[in-house]
Amino acid sequence: MSSTIGDHDRGSSAPACGPEADPVEHRSLLETLQAIIVRRRDVRSEFTGDPVAPAVVRQLLEAAHAAPSVGLSQPWDFVVVRDASIRDRFRTHVTAERQAFAATLDDDRGTLFQHIKVEGICEASLGIVVTYDPTRGAPAVLGRHAIADAGVYSTCLAIENLWLAATAIGFGVGWVSFYREPVLRALIGAPEHIRPVAWLCVGPVSALQVIPDLERVGWRARRPLDAAVHFDVWGRSFPEGRP
Amino acid sequence: MSSTIGDHDRGSSAPACGPEADPVEHRSLLETLQAIIVRRRDVRSEFTGDPVAPAVVRQLLEAAHAAPSVGLSQPWDFVVVRDASIRDRFRTHVTAERQAFAATLDDDRGTLFQHIKVEGICEASLGIVVTYDPTRGAPAVLGRHAIADAGVYSTCLAIENLWLAATAIGFGVGWVSFYREPVLRALIGAPEHIRPVAWLCVGPVSALQVIPDLERVGWRARRPLDAAVHFDVWGRSFPEGRP
Repeated sequence: MSSTIGDHDRGSSAPACGPEADPVEHRSLLETLQAIIVRRRDVRSEFTGDPVAPAVVRQLLEAAHAAPSVGLSQPWDFVVVRDASIRDRFRTHVTAERQAFAATLDDDRGTLFQHIKVEGICEASLGIVVTYDPTRGAPAVLGRHAIADAGVYSTCLAIENLWLAATAIGFGVGWVSFYREPVLRALIGAPEHIRPVAWLCVGPVSALQVIPDLERVGWRARRPLDAAVHFDVWGRSFPEGRP
Repeated sequence: MSSTIGDHDRGSSAPACGPEADPVEHRSLLETLQAIIVRRRDVRSEFTGDPVAPAVVRQLLEAAHAAPSVGLSQPWDFVVVRDASIRDRFRTHVTAERQAFAATLDDDRGTLFQHIKVEGICEASLGIVVTYDPTRGAPAVLGRHAIADAGVYSTCLAIENLWLAATAIGFGVGWVSFYREPVLRALIGAPEHIRPVAWLCVGPVSALQVIPDLERVGWRARRPLDAAVHFDVWGRSFPEGRP
């Protein structure tokens, strides 16, 4: 029992989870998690820019760092960017990449895209660059020999943990992906083998939108879950109806 | 106000989050989330195999489906596998890939690896294959023109949501990555353009380990968070000490 979760292992007043918790407790935990998951948004416009205490940054990074990782490699790093000059240079690059994307759009999409804000780099309190290090734990990363990208996958799991933790405390997070990896790598002075996976704009917000920005402005509607679920093999429905 | 989160928008008894919630509520939400995040494990050995009601499967998939995605593309699909024959064939393939990895290890690692279980494919109640569809919303996926992998990243965020929801209800999840993508694609009958990202073993467990399996058996220790945090540029410490 000493290596399983039990009351004796809990160091805080946080609720229990795991199989020992009762069904009511499980329901309550799930409801709280669902509330966070559903309220989470990809934020561009609502950042207040208010300063964030280092202890709060640490809570977000702790959540990220507790993510699962292939072979327990924890291949991520976090570069917390407050420097105005770095952020300004990154925004200049993102603006150019935005224009490159705009140039690929047809007239209707192009007109719509003009009104879509794609980043809050300078307005957010912080940038957090999340990177992937393929050399961590290498060469024998358990579980990565057949799937080279498994370490990148792990890095994304860490990002989602951070995102949910930020949402729980009322912060917004906006993932900026209008950039070229080598440019961002150079901007943060990371070694050649380090791959930037995300620039996250992070900080307090005036509000979290209920409807995702891209749906609200008519760029794209969300897909029903049922369309994404298959039973045993691709395209087969559940025998007892939807799961 | 109608597009921001407020009391009038809450349809359930779930706790509020977002900037309107008070600091005490934020702390409580974060504590609950942290409890789930910390208890989450990558499970191989503790699955009970008990049947899982479709409504519970749906709760997990709803959590996954509410993840962020690049350009709101929601490029994931979920193949819920109960069929014993498919699982058996997948396990045979995984066993072969396990042997391929074992052959790359030196003697010490090889001996240790013999005792490490890498999958609970047939013991778990369910398999859930999570896949990525690069054609969804293409060609003009907002935010993917510069980062081709951004859609794969989104799929991983969905996986983490599912994993946390499963943990909240006392389930275990084990991500199996000892497989070749074309083999798994064929096994679930997915089209050529669909990329399998994960096989997740999912279901009730007898217990969740406190220490990750790979740390407990001495394969690899977890890294301190401080080693992964940088300030403004790579390798620089926080001016006020650790964040």
